[in-house]
Amino acid sequence: MVEAPTHLLERVLQQRVTLVLKDSRQLTGKLLGLDEHMNLVLDDADETTADVSRHLGRVVLRGSNVVTLHAPQGAPSKPA
Amino acid sequence: MVEAPTHLLERVLQQRVTLVLKDSRQLTGKLLGLDEHMNLVLDDADETTADVSRHLGRVVLRGSNVVTLHAPQGAPSKPA
Amino acid sequence: MVEAPTHLLERVLQQRVTLVLKDSRQLTGKLLGLDEHMNLVLDDADETTADVSRHLGRVVLRGSNVVTLHAPQGAPSKPA
Amino acid sequence: MVEAPTHLLERVLQQRVTLVLKDSRQLTGKLLGLDEHMNLVLDDADETTADVSRHLGRVVLRGSNVVTLHAPQGAPSKPA
Amino acid sequence: MVEAPTHLLERVLQQRVTLVLKDSRQLTGKLLGLDEHMNLVLDDADETTADVSRHLGRVVLRGSNVVTLHAPQGAPSKPA
Amino acid sequence: MVEAPTHLLERVLQQRVTLVLKDSRQLTGKLLGLDEHMNLVLDDADETTADVSRHLGRVVLRGSNVVTLHAPQGAPSKPA
Amino acid sequence: MVEAPTHLLERVLQQRVTLVLKDSRQLTGKLLGLDEHMNLVLDDADETTADVSRHLGRVVLRGSNVVTLHAPQGAPSKPA
Repeated sequence: MVEAPTHLLERVLQQRVTLVLKDSRQLTGKLLGLDEHMNLVLDDADETTADVSRHLGRVVLRGSNVVTLHAPQGAPSKPA
Repeated sequence: MVEAPTHLLERVLQQRVTLVLKDSRQLTGKLLGLDEHMNLVLDDADETTADVSRHLGRVVLRGSNVVTLHAPQGAPSKPA
Repeated sequence: MVEAPTHLLERVLQQRVTLVLKDSRQLTGKLLGLDEHMNLVLDDADETTADVSRHLGRVVLRGSNVVTLHAPQGAPSKPA
Repeated sequence: MVEAPTHLLERVLQQRVTLVLKDSRQLTGKLLGLDEHMNLVLDDADETTADVSRHLGRVVLRGSNVVTLHAPQGAPSKPA
Repeated sequence: MVEAPTHLLERVLQQRVTLVLKDSRQLTGKLLGLDEHMNLVLDDADETTADVSRHLGRVVLRGSNVVTLHAPQGAPSKPA
Repeated sequence: MVEAPTHLLERVLQQRVTLVLKDSRQLTGKLLGLDEHMNLVLDDADETTADVSRHLGRVVLRGSNVVTLHAPQGAPSKPA
Repeated sequence: MVEAPTHLLERVLQQRVTLVLKDSRQLTGKLLGLDEHMNLVLDDADETTADVSRHLGRVVLRGSNVVTLHAPQGAPSKPA
């Protein structure tokens, strides 16, 4: 019943996720891809800082900047 | 009688734990999984900063952001 | 349908991209090259900080300073 | 007569130690375990910041956050 | 037509380049040498901070401090 | 006549040394041991910050926090 | 005619050099030794901060703290 971090990431592919970054920016977008460094590709991404929000579109994000990732709509249950 | 850090982490799986992060956010949730980089998966997680608290649900956290992890309800005793 | 971060980067070669750096400078330029550390070469690059903007021309950027890269005009569709 | 850092750590197992962390928090607790990354397990730990103190119980600490460790009651003499 | 970062660096050897560093100092000098860590040697270098400018002469710079390098006079065209 | 950094460290074993740390604390104590990561053991150590000084006794220090080490009484001459 | 960073360092052995560190301290001293991590040994070193200057004598410096090194009196010409 243990959930490996990379498995959860793969299960939320094609879903909208929210990332909190080390510089405290927040990015929300559809998770299109990832690699073993936790570099991520988001589609239709929006960036939110303390003050403002802007649309970025497709984004590549270096994994070393990520603090947390969560799927606001809930992650799907594990396939049986 | 030495307790390895990874063994303690495995023994608190499925329990609620509290993490203090480098950006001084605090996360509390049920520990669902981990890997060798101390990347963690929390379920039903709540985030607390100096000011506010919000519900995040299922969260993947990069291990490099963790300062400390503790189990508020106490870690279970070591199995004999 | 998974999009690897490095594949997206290769597909936006020769296009204008915008980089947000850790020191919160922003660079926009035509992506001429990259390597496996995500070191990048931009041509005809402009730098924008909170206050001012200046033209830098051809720039080499160390990958460790990159937070995000996006292609304002939209990334091309994946080749079939 | 040279004292290796890891040997000193092993000799203070089961004793109360005080850690100063990079974020300048201070933790005091009984050292239950450690690994080669200097990840540590403390029992019955108390955290002190500039302002306040709180009880954390059993704690896992990532070694990369440690600045110094000392044993207030004095480390035991080296076994002959 | 892809330009590797290290190739661009080699093509601007013997030219004046401008470096922006992580501590936001700026160095301008003739690029005399480099290695695989992007450690650099500049000759006849000048350092500029927010306030002041000073002449340093020949400088060795650790690559990990570099954010960007650009050649104000333009990089030469690629040899055919 | 070149002096390797690790050789100098070994020659000041059993002497009082002063360390400046990244968080700008200063530690002075008798150097009891070290390893290849420049993790250090000090005995009878005193810590000094901008404001105050306190006695720590025997201390383990992670090498990654060290900026400089010097031996106020002067390092011994190299053995012939 | 390319000058490798490590070769320049070896050529300024036994000369006075000035180092700028990440914490913006500046050290000047005679370069006695170095290793492959750019850890350095300085003799007869003086430290200068924004405010004050003090004599440190013989110093070991961790290379990861170095931003730049320059030889105020000019580096010697390359041997033929």
